[in-house]
Amino acid sequence: MTLQNKLNFSGGPGALPEKVLVQLSEEIINVPGPGLSILGISHRSEWFAEVIAELENNIRTLMGLSDAYHVLLLQGGATQQFSMVPMTLLRGQNSPAEYLHTGYWSGKAIPEARLEGPVRVIWSGSENNFNRLPSDDELCFSPDAPYIHYISNETVEGLQFQRILGRNDVPRICDMSSDFLSKPCEFERFSLIYAHAQKNIGPAGITVIVIRNDLIEHTTGNLPGFLDYKTQIKAHSNFNTPPVFAIYAVLLVSRWLINDIGGLENMAAINNRKAELLYRVIDESDGFYRGRAAADRSLMNVVFKLSSAELEAGFLSRAQAAGFSGLAGHRAIGGLRASIYNAVTLEAVEELAGFMDEFRRRSKPN
Amino acid sequence: MTLQNKLNFSGGPGALPEKVLVQLSEEIINVPGPGLSILGISHRSEWFAEVIAELENNIRTLMGLSDAYHVLLLQGGATQQFSMVPMTLLRGQNSPAEYLHTGYWSGKAIPEARLEGPVRVIWSGSENNFNRLPSDDELCFSPDAPYIHYISNETVEGLQFQRILGRNDVPRICDMSSDFLSKPCEFERFSLIYAHAQKNIGPAGITVIVIRNDLIEHTTGNLPGFLDYKTQIKAHSNFNTPPVFAIYAVLLVSRWLINDIGGLENMAAINNRKAELLYRVIDESDGFYRGRAAADRSLMNVVFKLSSAELEAGFLSRAQAAGFSGLAGHRAIGGLRASIYNAVTLEAVEELAGFMDEFRRRSKPN
Repeated sequence: MTLQNKLNFSGGPGALPEKVLVQLSEEIINVPGPGLSILGISHRSEWFAEVIAELENNIRTLMGLSDAYHVLLLQGGATQQFSMVPMTLLRGQNSPAEYLHTGYWSGKAIPEARLEGPVRVIWSGSENNFNRLPSDDELCFSPDAPYIHYISNETVEGLQFQRILGRNDVPRICDMSSDFLSKPCEFERFSLIYAHAQKNIGPAGITVIVIRNDLIEHTTGNLPGFLDYKTQIKAHSNFNTPPVFAIYAVLLVSRWLINDIGGLENMAAINNRKAELLYRVIDESDGFYRGRAAADRSLMNVVFKLSSAELEAGFLSRAQAAGFSGLAGHRAIGGLRASIYNAVTLEAVEELAGFMDEFRRRSKPN
Repeated sequence: MTLQNKLNFSGGPGALPEKVLVQLSEEIINVPGPGLSILGISHRSEWFAEVIAELENNIRTLMGLSDAYHVLLLQGGATQQFSMVPMTLLRGQNSPAEYLHTGYWSGKAIPEARLEGPVRVIWSGSENNFNRLPSDDELCFSPDAPYIHYISNETVEGLQFQRILGRNDVPRICDMSSDFLSKPCEFERFSLIYAHAQKNIGPAGITVIVIRNDLIEHTTGNLPGFLDYKTQIKAHSNFNTPPVFAIYAVLLVSRWLINDIGGLENMAAINNRKAELLYRVIDESDGFYRGRAAADRSLMNVVFKLSSAELEAGFLSRAQAAGFSGLAGHRAIGGLRASIYNAVTLEAVEELAGFMDEFRRRSKPN
């Protein structure tokens, strides 16, 4: 096998910038300054307090957030947020929170919310097999909902919202796990945003949460400390031992985004070109490659299939031999998927586009 | 600064075996086999399923556990277990669970348990400033308790049980975070054992839980998936994306324990010699070094102080110049602490003992 990190199109955990990998590899042995392995530095050290402070600041800078927002770094993935959000905001409420069911991951969030309080699913894509997102005139938001929750990018089906949903008098909560920091957005229109790291910003094991002050001002949940946003905010994400390595890796990615890429505008320009390249190959393939989404195609997860499972197996095996990895579709739906998160380079996507073109030509009946 | 990883006496995250650090450093770039960065390998890959299976098996082997036990690898640290245990076993119970309050960390576990149900603290060391553990005749366990919970080693105060507490007709639950896999133990006398990794077995961000089948057979808690032992067991610790890197690091440490150390008997022999060395320096210092514990001294955390804060500051500064790190006491109580977890070598402890002897000689009034 000759797989290459830069040709890793995994749905996540996936590619990280090569520069970040090289630095982490060195710092497993020795972090200049502290002079110790990154794995052996105390979470109560001054060095780590600076890591947290710089990372909070970098996220704030990239997102253009005012001081009204807190930045948290917690364990448990988006899954833990599926529960922490309704534990905090839905317990004891009479009005239902409003959820959109747009694919696999929002389908995981809804039952966890129902454990805590009333939920109204205001739109579901299940009837159309999740091949598109709702238009505005299909959505009717209630002013009485404690919050509205949706997922900006459905990783499995390859669907992405290119607009902000909801109403301004109801807190918007968004799971941005799979397109976080991939493009500019009016982030301050949200009350709470969460994103696990293992798509765009780091390794598995850490989740970024951005939360506006007023959302939790009046909450009084008698929650365990580790599930309590207020406790975690007060402790600067250091209520109990945080995953130092994963947080440091996210810091290095945030530096790369700011210093090497030049911010979210530039990142979006690169990401747009990457997605265009692959969708063009699909659209110009005379039906050889079949995109899954009928509309609202994701710029992060290009989901497609071939005419048969045999052909797909051949595609994956040829791709692997050429150094590509992570191109199998999600186990829930099969098919193929190229995830082109921030760290997947334009060059890598050009190589994949070339490979796809060639595979199609070779597979054509003579 | 010339700090050395091998002279890291941190309370955790702390030292890891040098061999493990070197391998992790290499595999941040390329894991032989998959041929990808450890940070870019999918948690749904065959490779990772084998990592989980081997690690479960290694832990089972090291602990001598039968198939009646499940091994889980979860996020959230011991803190999450402070809550998961009573969420699962105490909610809706009338009889109180029995907790021992033996120091800083058991003091953190008790209020989280009280959030979920009735708790009886059957012994507290608060009156004697947590300078010893209870003797058997100070303890009276009820046959009606849903479980008994205690902490085998109090990291902050440096106290360690050298026996197993409780009664055989009540499930024993033990937080072994800071002495896990440091010595043999009749592990099967416990119904549930948990230990976060960052003391003896890996980096921060992962926790090992060992749980006997019958403990949760009849539980029906309507818990979120990530907090539900049954859901996590069914998913082989892969309910939602686990911290792949941290789990892999624990696997490497478990291999080191089995292959390089030769199991827990050997590990205990080394750990005993390490602790003896340091306690001898303290005991033979004519009161220059003052051990904190009046009895039940920990073999993992040697907690002591000097006659003044100035002298302690001088000790830390001189130690740092000599390459030692992590010797400051826990922020809750101050003083000094040498944590001598599994990965701290006998040679490193000999160096520290030599340093302590010399520091004492130099500090003596002429």
